Amino acid sequence: MSIGVIGGLGPMATAVYMKKVISMTKADRDQDHPDMIIYSKPSVPDRTAFILGQSDDSPLPFLMDMALSLERQGADVIAVPCITARFFNAELREKVNVPIIHGVDGTAAYCERCGYKKVGIMATAGSIKSGVIASALKEHGITPVIPDEQTQEVVTGLIYDSVKCGKSADKNALQQAADNLRQAGAEICLLGCTELSVIADSCDLGEGFFDILDMLAAQSVVMGGAELREEYRYLVG
Amino acid sequence: MSIGVIGGLGPMATAVYMKKVISMTKADRDQDHPDMIIYSKPSVPDRTAFILGQSDDSPLPFLMDMALSLERQGADVIAVPCITARFFNAELREKVNVPIIHGVDGTAAYCERCGYKKVGIMATAGSIKSGVIASALKEHGITPVIPDEQTQEVVTGLIYDSVKCGKSADKNALQQAADNLRQAGAEICLLGCTELSVIADSCDLGEGFFDILDMLAAQSVVMGGAELREEYRYLVG
Repeated sequence: MSIGVIGGLGPMATAVYMKKVISMTKADRDQDHPDMIIYSKPSVPDRTAFILGQSDDSPLPFLMDMALSLERQGADVIAVPCITARFFNAELREKVNVPIIHGVDGTAAYCERCGYKKVGIMATAGSIKSGVIASALKEHGITPVIPDEQTQEVVTGLIYDSVKCGKSADKNALQQAADNLRQAGAEICLLGCTELSVIADSCDLGEGFFDILDMLAAQSVVMGGAELREEYRYLVG
Repeated sequence: MSIGVIGGLGPMATAVYMKKVISMTKADRDQDHPDMIIYSKPSVPDRTAFILGQSDDSPLPFLMDMALSLERQGADVIAVPCITARFFNAELREKVNVPIIHGVDGTAAYCERCGYKKVGIMATAGSIKSGVIASALKEHGITPVIPDEQTQEVVTGLIYDSVKCGKSADKNALQQAADNLRQAGAEICLLGCTELSVIADSCDLGEGFFDILDMLAAQSVVMGGAELREEYRYLVG
């Protein structure tokens, strides 16, 4: 059994994802862990720039190459620690038969299990525009709460001007953006961009957040044929 | 340009290695980072058990498969974040033309540049028996300081009973092992097993250590065609 990964979008998010998969796996020795094949290709054109029409360089051919290569090498599941890339999922699934996961659907199902009615989304402008997270929440009867323009600019800045530059992020700015979503009715805020998961990994954000990358990691462990540590089993229902 | 990685030996060490490569790279955006192809295969038979003659399962065919696959996919360098695996390097190099690095030779060269005469080695019993680090140090005119039997048991316990089990390691035990090496004349102690790098990544060990995984990451950035952040350039001389 093995987990295939379309990664590097950005690279640190993939490293944090890998760490989560390993930490969540019940293992007493190396050989208890699932194998992983990780393509970390930060050279892939920016997803948000393409979705917003700011660039004609489509990431799709690169994502397709990685997916097909992982399928050929026998991956049982393909995890994509880049939520913005879920925009291209329908096209990937036309040619790839292995399940492709981003953690988004699992997160929406989890939010429904928890009884949330209104859920805030912190993500790239590309993900907000394409509605990849909002539509998953709606399918589970949940009302998505989207940032206003100014709050979105703060989130975009955290993603592109901090994490992707390798600079430390302003945790207070993230908390302020979450407060704005809560004032608009959100009962919980989704970290809906894996760069935000990198920030969460480096500090304690406290209550009121759910990290979609946690869901992706937990699903990867299970679909990769390994066993979750007991404290993470609530994630997969 | 891309970095190939023979990893998963163990898996958390590979995640820490990946994080180091990304952190050390001078980058203002995803696209400034080198691509990486990471085979994380914890299913590979234990290296030390084979080297010590406790098991007939050779890891060599698995390492060879990964190396040849990385070469076919155009890796410019193959990094192996498992120092014990350097035992098999001669056999890999017979069939693989891409440079294969473990950080060991770079570390020995660095120790010589620093003027060290006696250097302590903390590593698996497999690495100690095969002498992979000791012989590299000797080539640079440095006397290796090897743990006594009791100290080696402590180091082995940290590697196999803590990190590889996903348990938190006893930092004091590691410091005590290092003190024993210093009493035997070591001017600095090498973290010569990537599982020990995992411990070092999770706490502050203070002065007196050099992490071979730092060297491997720095060499990977350079050989992968990217630029090192200024604060890490001292590593590559």
